Amino acid sequence: MSGKLFIIGLGPGPDFWVVPEASEALAQVSDVIGYEPYVARIAPREGLTLHGSDNRVEITRAQYALELALSGKQVAVVSGGDPGVFAMAAAVLEAVEAGPQAWLNIDIQIIPGISAMQAAAARVGAPLGHDFCAISLSDNLKPWEIIERRLIAAAQGDFVIALYNPASKARPQRIFDAFTLLNAHKSPDTPLIFARAVGRADESLHITTLSSADIARIDMSTLVLIGSSETRLITRPNQRPWVLTPRSYGAAR
Amino acid sequence: MSGKLFIIGLGPGPDFWVVPEASEALAQVSDVIGYEPYVARIAPREGLTLHGSDNRVEITRAQYALELALSGKQVAVVSGGDPGVFAMAAAVLEAVEAGPQAWLNIDIQIIPGISAMQAAAARVGAPLGHDFCAISLSDNLKPWEIIERRLIAAAQGDFVIALYNPASKARPQRIFDAFTLLNAHKSPDTPLIFARAVGRADESLHITTLSSADIARIDMSTLVLIGSSETRLITRPNQRPWVLTPRSYGAAR
Repeated sequence: MSGKLFIIGLGPGPDFWVVPEASEALAQVSDVIGYEPYVARIAPREGLTLHGSDNRVEITRAQYALELALSGKQVAVVSGGDPGVFAMAAAVLEAVEAGPQAWLNIDIQIIPGISAMQAAAARVGAPLGHDFCAISLSDNLKPWEIIERRLIAAAQGDFVIALYNPASKARPQRIFDAFTLLNAHKSPDTPLIFARAVGRADESLHITTLSSADIARIDMSTLVLIGSSETRLITRPNQRPWVLTPRSYGAAR
Repeated sequence: MSGKLFIIGLGPGPDFWVVPEASEALAQVSDVIGYEPYVARIAPREGLTLHGSDNRVEITRAQYALELALSGKQVAVVSGGDPGVFAMAAAVLEAVEAGPQAWLNIDIQIIPGISAMQAAAARVGAPLGHDFCAISLSDNLKPWEIIERRLIAAAQGDFVIALYNPASKARPQRIFDAFTLLNAHKSPDTPLIFARAVGRADESLHITTLSSADIARIDMSTLVLIGSSETRLITRPNQRPWVLTPRSYGAAR
């Protein structure tokens, strides 16, 4: 049997957000490779080897998966969320690009998943109902200047903004820098959502505004959504408000 | 039994991209409401009424679903893709906002789905591996000026760009206007992907560059992905190249 590499998105956490294509692939592989908390979601079974690893070794992990697939194994690399969004699909293809010629012929199938911004949006209403962008605040692999440039462009374009990897133990000041920039370019009453661990037991959702946000509560499990100038709340009796970015814009309303 | 309204994303087409939460909700509702081609994906069963409608009546459709839920029924509104991304979640909440007080108390659950850009990305590699934005080119409900402003901001921020609703029979010139603008702000050799009907029988994928694109082939079933300055191709023998937007950026490479 020739080998195959699946790059699989496990979604934000619960099984009910894992697409059947992912479950079917996971049922047929012999090896699952990924960051330990994602690998821990896979039920052990006979004939399945689980390879959990640290978060900082994406390329090593990708290379190992490619080697196993080239040797004839059916292998899965797993990501949380969607593997195509700030996750392992890019890491594996970077390894392919830099690797031996034979890796170009490996049968690779990427299986999409529900990304954190989609789960957060579903919980609070329709904040992504209109044009939006997704920005990773991690400056491990890109200069902070490009993050600043993108935050400013996102504000100038009046996009709804989803911030991934917002906080960092190594660089705790960065999230404050990002909010200083956003406050300089957007209205203080812009709706802001902190969505933490959506779909998991410790899920929490917090709806506030850009100027009154307690930024210190943001951690690496928090997905931050920042409204456009059109994003608004629909208040409800005894319940969390709905957050709505309508399909219409400004004068067309 | 008190009523409930599910707003469900059916993904790009095939059942293997529908999350279990959606399938479970669809198994328990009495009424499914949506644009006819999406409703047609739901298998008929006893006790289930399918209400297919035209594409231009989102608010009427939303109001009808809310009325049914208020009357005690278990109702599903279905969208293709993710209901939160240019789809029915915003339409339903706009109806709630403008509707009677009683609609504020309706139990509404939004179930996310795989959006077209995610399916397209999975097929071609990792074009969304770094910061990106999603823009609807439909100017039914927003002025063309805001679309231009967002296209320029997206180019200035060097985001990967996903274009939804790119073509229109009513305004066939708009897509050409958009590409004129993009060509003025981005490199001519920027990778460009036309992903049509991904996951369906008539799926087609076309990888080209911004300056050599045949824009006339774009229709309403086409999802357009436009690379950042970092997006590149990995050529492969006898196969479509992989498209990669790496996790690193510029000087940090």
